[in-house]
Amino acid sequence: MSKGLDYETLNENVKKVQYAVRGELYLRASELQKEGKKIIFTNVGNPHALGQKPLTFPRQVVALCQAPFLLDDPNVGLVFPADVIARARHYLSLTSGGLGAYSDSRGLPGIRKEVAEFIERRDGYPSDPELIYLTDGASKGVMQMLNTIIRGGNDGDIIVFSSIPRFTLAPFAFQILVPVPQYPLYSATISLYGGSLIPYYLEETANWGLDINNLRQSISLARSRDITVRAMVIINPGNPTGQCLSEANLQEILKFCYHEKLVLLADEVYQQNVYQDERLFISARKVLLAMGSPFNKEVQLVSFHTVSKGYWGECGQRGGYFEMTNIPPQTVDEIYKVASISLSPNVPGQIFMGLMVNPPKPGDISYLKFDLESKAILESLKKRAHIMTNGFNSCRNVVCNFTEGAMYSFPQIRLPQKAIEAAKTAGKVPDVFYCLKLLEATGISTVPGSGFGQKDGVFHLRTTILPAEEDMPAIMESFKKFNDRFMEQYEDSRGYSRM
Amino acid sequence: MSKGLDYETLNENVKKVQYAVRGELYLRASELQKEGKKIIFTNVGNPHALGQKPLTFPRQVVALCQAPFLLDDPNVGLVFPADVIARARHYLSLTSGGLGAYSDSRGLPGIRKEVAEFIERRDGYPSDPELIYLTDGASKGVMQMLNTIIRGGNDGDIIVFSSIPRFTLAPFAFQILVPVPQYPLYSATISLYGGSLIPYYLEETANWGLDINNLRQSISLARSRDITVRAMVIINPGNPTGQCLSEANLQEILKFCYHEKLVLLADEVYQQNVYQDERLFISARKVLLAMGSPFNKEVQLVSFHTVSKGYWGECGQRGGYFEMTNIPPQTVDEIYKVASISLSPNVPGQIFMGLMVNPPKPGDISYLKFDLESKAILESLKKRAHIMTNGFNSCRNVVCNFTEGAMYSFPQIRLPQKAIEAAKTAGKVPDVFYCLKLLEATGISTVPGSGFGQKDGVFHLRTTILPAEEDMPAIMESFKKFNDRFMEQYEDSRGYSRM
Repeated sequence: MSKGLDYETLNENVKKVQYAVRGELYLRASELQKEGKKIIFTNVGNPHALGQKPLTFPRQVVALCQAPFLLDDPNVGLVFPADVIARARHYLSLTSGGLGAYSDSRGLPGIRKEVAEFIERRDGYPSDPELIYLTDGASKGVMQMLNTIIRGGNDGDIIVFSSIPRFTLAPFAFQILVPVPQYPLYSATISLYGGSLIPYYLEETANWGLDINNLRQSISLARSRDITVRAMVIINPGNPTGQCLSEANLQEILKFCYHEKLVLLADEVYQQNVYQDERLFISARKVLLAMGSPFNKEVQLVSFHTVSKGYWGECGQRGGYFEMTNIPPQTVDEIYKVASISLSPNVPGQIFMGLMVNPPKPGDISYLKFDLESKAILESLKKRAHIMTNGFNSCRNVVCNFTEGAMYSFPQIRLPQKAIEAAKTAGKVPDVFYCLKLLEATGISTVPGSGFGQKDGVFHLRTTILPAEEDMPAIMESFKKFNDRFMEQYEDSRGYSRM
Repeated sequence: MSKGLDYETLNENVKKVQYAVRGELYLRASELQKEGKKIIFTNVGNPHALGQKPLTFPRQVVALCQAPFLLDDPNVGLVFPADVIARARHYLSLTSGGLGAYSDSRGLPGIRKEVAEFIERRDGYPSDPELIYLTDGASKGVMQMLNTIIRGGNDGDIIVFSSIPRFTLAPFAFQILVPVPQYPLYSATISLYGGSLIPYYLEETANWGLDINNLRQSISLARSRDITVRAMVIINPGNPTGQCLSEANLQEILKFCYHEKLVLLADEVYQQNVYQDERLFISARKVLLAMGSPFNKEVQLVSFHTVSKGYWGECGQRGGYFEMTNIPPQTVDEIYKVASISLSPNVPGQIFMGLMVNPPKPGDISYLKFDLESKAILESLKKRAHIMTNGFNSCRNVVCNFTEGAMYSFPQIRLPQKAIEAAKTAGKVPDVFYCLKLLEATGISTVPGSGFGQKDGVFHLRTTILPAEEDMPAIMESFKKFNDRFMEQYEDSRGYSRM
């Protein structure tokens, strides 16, 4: 008889989880790093790890909140500006017990109010702090919401999508519609909680646009197999695909959710990261409320945000929130109850969230510096998005849409038939094979497209646009050198992977 | 047809969760507070919320890590001592990207090494940093471990313990042995993940000792119903019961786990909080490794610790770790994979964990102050434990074991028959009825014993020993006044609840 934590006896859903962002490529990269090789980690959107400096103002405020005794130190004014001191006092006044005390499990009421005010300014419609819950980063919020929605396996028949084997991880009846390619938080969490994922494909040739017909097809297929579809995920701006959804597209999606009675989970963590002026970020909530009756009172929407992304990039602080629209009070109470089990999100992360939605204003002592730092980061991200897209498009058999938003580039790699066969011989998925070779040759640690999902026989990789601007040309040159040599090595008369 | 987040369609396991620490009493207390009533929140072990000041040294270090640009400020030495500056540099050198970067999903390797060194000093046996994972507080670690162990409901028969209705929340076949009374993190999480809980009763008359015969009875009962028991939980020092387990008792438990092939989950978050010299804290791991073959190589053990408890009480920072002993490498990898989904625990909380296991040493500039602050808190907790126990024992129909460790008092309240009937009329569990009356009369917010589990017809409440020492006499007087009046009001010739 085996023991409780022997592999054979573990929760099967745990074993089924796949999480490529820190998967085989990341593990190999970590090994190489230990062996002394210089690794450029572009596998995770982790800006500070690649040298981005933190914004001064929020760090000053949180540092002071951590050391409240400094507020009584006569020298405090020598190291902290007056508006920082005032803001630290403000946040401490919102807590009872400072950063060392658990807050309410939904987060500090005063910060939830600041978030509601931000949402109102952004969307033009009031927001209710009681429907905003602070979380340890957006991922934890997404996980809690999926755990609330996904019912255990006892409730329905076993379904296997034989045509899309990557997404048949957990063959049960209550299902979530997820874009493909997608950020694997969704596929992994859905597996973990015993749900399963219905993919809808984004159109690479239409700059990763969402074609509502693809959605309809996915749901029809699910229905024909007696699957109850309960929720839909959008990631806007897209990860890994970088597109910004248009208002018209969001309207179509919301109407679709209305007719199909789906909860819309809107992952909007990249809302600050937009690199073109043609299509700005617009929130699902703003579009919904503008659509009027019956949609604005009916469609269930949960929107996620975080301090990890944007130009702040404060990933390690783990701050985030979700806002619920049209969710029944009894459900809101259940979500509160489950949040209570782990007591409270970390309080410093909550304060970062407050600062992000309520930054220094023109006229504040710290405003100019804050504004300069902010613009410098965003401008540089924009430049890097261009350098990267252009770099990829200059490579043999590589084609890449422009990164309109978010912080990733997702080039398609047309692999020669011979490379596909070599991968097969090596027991690797072809894009994993390519990315491993890239890693060994250049130290660039990417994530293979298969980790996000892609159409059969089509291959990609995801890289962040986060390496330092001054390093970018050399990185792209190193990539090009590797890629073009790889192509030479494997090209022959038998053609390429599909486009 | 209902929508995805309508109450009827939610994950049934979510609905079954009960979490009394922030349940009806807490919600009512929050309402009263909003109405302007002064509430003494003793429902959660949240020391800073009740006025405990943070220790200066760790806060200085983390504040500097948050504001690393201060390290270049010529005035930094005016507000931070040199050893703080050195320690901040040390922790920043362990990260790549500072507090704003995601760490490895297991936590920063350098801090896991500090934790391993602490464990080795504490237990006298080496500890492997690769088997230590940092978490956002201990609760998150416990939840991850239970999610790994509990298999979905498809795996076995439906079992209902009709004699212990409180713990029939999730009637499936893979089960966790949990002490009763217990901290509801366990019951709530086991419900959430669709497992169920097998209670073993602690003996109130033996100062909440663990009688191995009770364990044997519980497991026999489970076996006779074809239940596969896979893990056992101990909380040492006890929550809510405050007892410290003896070495002999731990040996019995470990032998039991060996013979029954159970994983032992050792919740040791109160290891710093011990208020008597007769029985000091001893870790399950130390006892296990001292037992020699075959136990030391066979028993699977996961031990939990946190920065929230101890005398640090840094609850809001959400720092913790778990250490795995005798867990197979393949399982360790699975646990890593699942941890990766939420990217990393918060980095400031990791640094608090590092500081807690590696505090200032004699000779360091900050040592004297740190030592004074630490002793003052521990001494005061000890005094408060005495004031509280004595206070409860001076009340009519109240009997209370001494708080040997942890931060709670768990008096038994012998309720008059007439009070039990009044509770029934009001539609309340008797101890909930009592605690609500206490709250309304005095503002003292406690948790009814039924939230932790207790023998049928026996009633308790849990309070923390955390109100400020100077407030304690008045609080106990206010409690006594309420209790004795309550007893007068409800006593008649028909007797009391059982003991």
